[in-house]
Amino acid sequence: MLKDMQDWPLLVSKILEHAELNHSYQEIFSKLPEGGEFRYSMADMAKRARQAAQAFQTLGVKEGDRVGTLAWNTHRHVEIWYAASGMGAVTHTINPRLFPEQLVYIMNHAEDKILCVDVTFVPLVQAIEAELKTVEKFIVMVGKDHMPEGLGDNWISYEEILMAESGEYAWPDLDENTPCGLCYTSGTTGNPKGVQYTHRSNFLHTLIAISGDTLGITAKSVILPVVPMFHANAWGIPYAACATGCKMVLNGPHFEPDVLHDIIIREDVNVTAAVPTVWTGMLQYLKDTGKDMGKLTTVTIGGSAAPRSMIEEFQENYGVRVNHAWGMTEMSPLGSIGSENAAVANLSKKEKLDVQCKQGRTVLGVEMKIVDDEGNSLPRDGKTSGNLLVRGPWVVDTYYRADTRAVDNDGWFDTGDVACIDEYGYMQITDRSKDVIKSGGEWVSSIDLENAAVAHPDVVEAAVIGRYHPKWEERPLLILKMHEGKTVTLEEMHEFLLQHVIKWWLPDGIEFVDELPHTATGKISKKDLRDQFKDYKFPGT
Amino acid sequence: MLKDMQDWPLLVSKILEHAELNHSYQEIFSKLPEGGEFRYSMADMAKRARQAAQAFQTLGVKEGDRVGTLAWNTHRHVEIWYAASGMGAVTHTINPRLFPEQLVYIMNHAEDKILCVDVTFVPLVQAIEAELKTVEKFIVMVGKDHMPEGLGDNWISYEEILMAESGEYAWPDLDENTPCGLCYTSGTTGNPKGVQYTHRSNFLHTLIAISGDTLGITAKSVILPVVPMFHANAWGIPYAACATGCKMVLNGPHFEPDVLHDIIIREDVNVTAAVPTVWTGMLQYLKDTGKDMGKLTTVTIGGSAAPRSMIEEFQENYGVRVNHAWGMTEMSPLGSIGSENAAVANLSKKEKLDVQCKQGRTVLGVEMKIVDDEGNSLPRDGKTSGNLLVRGPWVVDTYYRADTRAVDNDGWFDTGDVACIDEYGYMQITDRSKDVIKSGGEWVSSIDLENAAVAHPDVVEAAVIGRYHPKWEERPLLILKMHEGKTVTLEEMHEFLLQHVIKWWLPDGIEFVDELPHTATGKISKKDLRDQFKDYKFPGT
Ligand SMILES: Nc1ncnc2c1ncn2[C@@H]1O[C@H](COP(=O)(O)OP(=O)(O)OP(=O)(O)O)[C@@H](O)[C@H]1O
Ligand SMILES: Nc1ncnc2c1ncn2[C@@H]1O[C@H](COP(=O)(O)OP(=O)(O)OP(=O)(O)O)[C@@H](O)[C@H]1O
Ligand SMILES: [Mg+2]
Ligand SMILES: [Mg+2]
Repeated sequence: MLKDMQDWPLLVSKILEHAELNHSYQEIFSKLPEGGEFRYSMADMAKRARQAAQAFQTLGVKEGDRVGTLAWNTHRHVEIWYAASGMGAVTHTINPRLFPEQLVYIMNHAEDKILCVDVTFVPLVQAIEAELKTVEKFIVMVGKDHMPEGLGDNWISYEEILMAESGEYAWPDLDENTPCGLCYTSGTTGNPKGVQYTHRSNFLHTLIAISGDTLGITAKSVILPVVPMFHANAWGIPYAACATGCKMVLNGPHFEPDVLHDIIIREDVNVTAAVPTVWTGMLQYLKDTGKDMGKLTTVTIGGSAAPRSMIEEFQENYGVRVNHAWGMTEMSPLGSIGSENAAVANLSKKEKLDVQCKQGRTVLGVEMKIVDDEGNSLPRDGKTSGNLLVRGPWVVDTYYRADTRAVDNDGWFDTGDVACIDEYGYMQITDRSKDVIKSGGEWVSSIDLENAAVAHPDVVEAAVIGRYHPKWEERPLLILKMHEGKTVTLEEMHEFLLQHVIKWWLPDGIEFVDELPHTATGKISKKDLRDQFKDYKFPGT
Repeated sequence: MLKDMQDWPLLVSKILEHAELNHSYQEIFSKLPEGGEFRYSMADMAKRARQAAQAFQTLGVKEGDRVGTLAWNTHRHVEIWYAASGMGAVTHTINPRLFPEQLVYIMNHAEDKILCVDVTFVPLVQAIEAELKTVEKFIVMVGKDHMPEGLGDNWISYEEILMAESGEYAWPDLDENTPCGLCYTSGTTGNPKGVQYTHRSNFLHTLIAISGDTLGITAKSVILPVVPMFHANAWGIPYAACATGCKMVLNGPHFEPDVLHDIIIREDVNVTAAVPTVWTGMLQYLKDTGKDMGKLTTVTIGGSAAPRSMIEEFQENYGVRVNHAWGMTEMSPLGSIGSENAAVANLSKKEKLDVQCKQGRTVLGVEMKIVDDEGNSLPRDGKTSGNLLVRGPWVVDTYYRADTRAVDNDGWFDTGDVACIDEYGYMQITDRSKDVIKSGGEWVSSIDLENAAVAHPDVVEAAVIGRYHPKWEERPLLILKMHEGKTVTLEEMHEFLLQHVIKWWLPDGIEFVDELPHTATGKISKKDLRDQFKDYKFPGT
């Protein structure tokens, strides 16, 4: 049948081809897990991605097979990403911070055919190798000279298999609904679940990632995606970089503030993105050393709520604009982002900061609504909270290998977050339904309490969980990690918190820990805290 | 079958819904054809679009029917645009500057079911009404009080039919390949041909239009699309405005520099877009009055080549950055745009200007190549010119009602433009194959010659066409419109042109005219010039 407009499939290989033709000269910089640094061009990257696709073919990888990666953000990881997806296989990025049993579960569930491993993770994989049922080859992402000693025959060097290939390879023409990537949620709530991205979903997500109001990336940007490629597409940045032609700076295995700071300065990074924990460390480092952020203009913070004090510090002390973003593995991950719109452009500095503490405005392509427990839509008045549901072309429909859909009959996916939305489109996460605290039938926002507590100068990190209370059913318990040598009483904390939260939300107890437990994606693990304080009793109960 | 990611169709009604929910407060300003001005919100617009859809239904418009518009850029035109497309009909924007016989041809060919007409065009339509075979109702886009006298029963007032509807209407769920818009090329080369845009093609085009490197639109922009909605989607701006939530300023029937200037200043316009002719008038107006451009920061110029002197004047004298764009009706229309990339960011001012005179870099989603007459790919060296072919999801495949495809077997569409592409991705139109001048078998670039000639301080507009030459087959003839009272000799012009073009391109003859003929899209009509100078003989031949 004749078509009006061209039937041009949305494929991630098209993004790579676009980069190769139009941004061939652009640089990619990478820290290496085996030590040292590396630098080449987008043209080089594209050619090596083709060699990698050939090498995978040689190893027997076919369309639809999973290629697992257990790797940091490096140029090789980017190559493998494009190679596996582009050839019609599925790039399965695995979070190395998971427990060994979770890794085994995930790789067996995904039936990974080959596994590409950073040299750092060889011991980790060796320890579980016997339990991996489907992996045929382990590819260590180094040259022959850096291969560890004493590996079995099925362990091979990435650089070696690449060298054997010509790079003369044409990306196949695929249907745009072909699977392209696979990422498991870290499973703070049950067994990890896989989200299988398609070429279409990733291409569309890329188009929104490069919009003027999203991450702030243009062809002249230098972007450091600190967010790992094993976290939901690294928030789409490796695609966005090839789409715009900006320079990409990759931090390899390094998350130490001094190393990140060094490459930000040396490589002229002006845009970056990561979870709050990374920035807590960086801001401390800047304070300790008196250094500034060089050319950095924009930092996107998401994955957990960015505390007000963090946003303020970046903007006031370092001239770096904070883009507060919200998303999920199930959403590829971009859902909303805190870019300024005309309604807030003329607000006072303080009012603007209020808006920035919210989780941003939804991007075109993500429909959002809040509903009560019966599913009735709630008003967008900036006050009423409800369950946050989403819909869109880069939102999950059915988890990998699940036999029922993850959405309701109208296609809405329940995010597990509790939020309100204001009349100017700004959404604010007030809680997570899985973490919710209900005191005498009323919700207490653990997120608001945590944000308020962390603003205290002696507090490093704060978490609030609900614990049993004989009268109220559940009441909030505040758990704090303090700065070295500091302490605070419950009464002092109450006084401090009252500046920000209403009285009946004040925690009934306070506990101090040396470290708060974190999930593999860097969020505070409420599940672990609830275990740890299972038998906690509030004072006087 | 279970799907990985959601099956969320790319529909233009989703763009409107996004605007209504998230940018409800934003303003739309419009000059009115019946006189006066109007101002309302995106929420109002969205509601009236739903009323319009209901009214069209009441008039018997069904999915797949064409709704013709013969209208300026106004809020009502925007409503009708979204209404017809959103309900599953096709918005057919018609260029009122066409000859009456072309209008008749187009409307009969499109089989328009109803026709929405600005009050300005009522006489135009009355004159051809008898020849329109399919139009059942003529809707005059005014209230009852502004309806002209003595119209037949099938002429009705837009405001009246809207008032009869509630606006309680849900946009239907359509397949994303459903036709959505229709636009005919103005036919400088044969009978007008229709390009039928789909929801998918327009949605994808919108996503690229709002990217950080395209038109420069964000949620905080105030955009004046001087480019008419009957020119290839107004370059996508009415969609982009709803997608980003920026303020839209619509100039109605006004193209006079003083009126445009007035609304640019009064409404705080910072982004605008139009063909060069509009800006020639504006720059003259600024010179005459000593005024500046207020808050304007970016102007996109395309449709014809933006002369170097125009780019320079905007940037040097008025601090307005010029984005030189290239596209076609057949391309929805965006193909390439002159945003700066990292390769040019460090060039000198003069070198940057050289790059800006090119037609820009291709956007993600448009594949481009240049080929010789045998179809062989030519190098991207910035020197070699060839036929420019394109491919992409918003490029035409088959013209409306054509029975053969407009593309070759590999899906490439021949643009009819001749271009070179440099190693940094910048494309330069050197000629149009339909306008080409071949001297002794070698191509002479009429565009380069025209750009060079128009830089002469006494020249207002310049055109170059090829005319018969006994020795060289064809040689260039320069046709000039001069400033009042000015003249120039062929020798003086040669001397001037030699600063910019090679010797053997120098025109062999020069002619002066009071006005150059323009096509309905504002391009100089070479076809008319070739007619006018049919029997021209070069001096000495
Ligand atoms: N800016 C933010 N503010 C508050 N919470 C956020 C923000 N961004 C993300 N989140 C939280 O993170 C969740 C998504 O996490 P994601 O799926 O990406 O990682 P995960 O490892 O699977 O963890 P989780 O168990 O939280 O799902 C959201 O549903 C929300 O609860
Ligand atoms: N920036 C530009 N520089 C030079 N030429 C341009 C530019 N933008 C557009 N054009 C010309 O305009 C053509 C597209 O015109 P379009 O289809 O939009 O209008 P049209 O009324 O159908 O006129 P045409 O007869 O030129 O096709 C391109 O193929 C090219 O020749
Ligand atoms: Mg999750
Ligand atoms: Mg045309």
